[in-house]
Amino acid sequence: MTASDGPTVGTLVLLRHGESDWNAKNLFTGWVDVDLTAKGEAEACRGGELIREHDLLPDVVHTSLLRRAIRTAELALNTADRQWIAVRRSWRLNERHYGALQGKNKKQTLDEYGEDQFMLWRRSYDTPPPPIADDDEWSQVGDPRYKLLPPELMPRTECLKDVVERMLPYWYDSIVPDILAGRTVLVAAHGNSLRALVKHLDQISDEEIAKLNIPTGIPLRYDLDSELRPHKLGGTYLDPEAAKAAAAAVANQGR
Amino acid sequence: MTASDGPTVGTLVLLRHGESDWNAKNLFTGWVDVDLTAKGEAEACRGGELIREHDLLPDVVHTSLLRRAIRTAELALNTADRQWIAVRRSWRLNERHYGALQGKNKKQTLDEYGEDQFMLWRRSYDTPPPPIADDDEWSQVGDPRYKLLPPELMPRTECLKDVVERMLPYWYDSIVPDILAGRTVLVAAHGNSLRALVKHLDQISDEEIAKLNIPTGIPLRYDLDSELRPHKLGGTYLDPEAAKAAAAAVANQGR
Repeated sequence: MTASDGPTVGTLVLLRHGESDWNAKNLFTGWVDVDLTAKGEAEACRGGELIREHDLLPDVVHTSLLRRAIRTAELALNTADRQWIAVRRSWRLNERHYGALQGKNKKQTLDEYGEDQFMLWRRSYDTPPPPIADDDEWSQVGDPRYKLLPPELMPRTECLKDVVERMLPYWYDSIVPDILAGRTVLVAAHGNSLRALVKHLDQISDEEIAKLNIPTGIPLRYDLDSELRPHKLGGTYLDPEAAKAAAAAVANQGR
Repeated sequence: MTASDGPTVGTLVLLRHGESDWNAKNLFTGWVDVDLTAKGEAEACRGGELIREHDLLPDVVHTSLLRRAIRTAELALNTADRQWIAVRRSWRLNERHYGALQGKNKKQTLDEYGEDQFMLWRRSYDTPPPPIADDDEWSQVGDPRYKLLPPELMPRTECLKDVVERMLPYWYDSIVPDILAGRTVLVAAHGNSLRALVKHLDQISDEEIAKLNIPTGIPLRYDLDSELRPHKLGGTYLDPEAAKAAAAAVANQGR
């Protein structure tokens, strides 16, 4: 994959939500609907400031159905004075479903299962954690926000490959039309749904994607041509120094 | 107009935003994009509590393009744990454009122009205030949120009749399909865009609508049949006592 040298058609801005209650507690979260911490709220506002400072004003925002991404979008857009733009949401932008690990402490899981198993669950492209039981306290079966989701589409666990597969239909059907209409499109979502999207955009291999960490709260800009090819592989962080520092911190989670 | 006795197809929940900075300062606001006060935020949260207590959970929310309505929806839905529902926005749900009165103090306007002229501007069905100049500091010409609005649709002043006429296309084209799909629909908007909608729903005459005040922050429920006729004319406030007290206070604004 090489970068595009054709004219930019539309611009994509990716924003990973900031610290949540369970990030702060070092728990696997997945589809559990935890809120932002005060630090996470500040990260979202800082993301909005960066968007405003770079005059990168979105025309439409896409979010997952999880409140930490929704509130990140609300806070960032409020800060950028763009809270009035069109909003679209989909479960297809949700975080990776972490299966039976949801609600478990990352450090305890590391100690209990060992480094190899832990890293396989965290970073393997195609090995999901064990599925969550429907009667587990952290299962989302019965959650009203997935009422219209056919039961056979409701995940019980996911690896990154599963996320790519369920995210891409939303990319093609809902986000791409906004980009091809010349819009600046904000996607406020999660570490793994954004890694899935970046893997697709940059055509990163199944092996290489394991090394990619997307930092929280720092907008990542992709200018795309009419074939949705990025002008710059990897995109451009609006605060590159902070992005570098934050990505390193994410890689050390659970230690 | 008589109330419907047919089966309920969908439910409409109207929510007027709470106190804004300019309500607190007693200024005519109209299309000026002022924020909620802390009291207004609390009103929005209380609205969300009432929605949750009455198990009247919206499936979709429609808002104006003004942040006081958008934030009211965000706060109410966050409180009701429904922040993930579908969102639609339109300038057609905006507050009445108050023309050259925007930014003026209500009390000073009353003193300067007298009771008759003041009440004509506030409550006449078909007499708008003088139009605002495009170079007035409180004009919305050039505001990016109306970039796609054809210039001939951009109001410079409005009477309630004008609001009814520009609001109804949105009602028919965007809100009604949600109701006929069996959804519970939240509309978070403004005193006059909601009066325009209630006038249409209850078929209130041009004369009688002058007396109707919709209180802030108290959800107003309409159960509608397949012809969009209400089961109860006037709807049902989720907190009737508070609604009565608040409506009386609104009627005395500017005194």
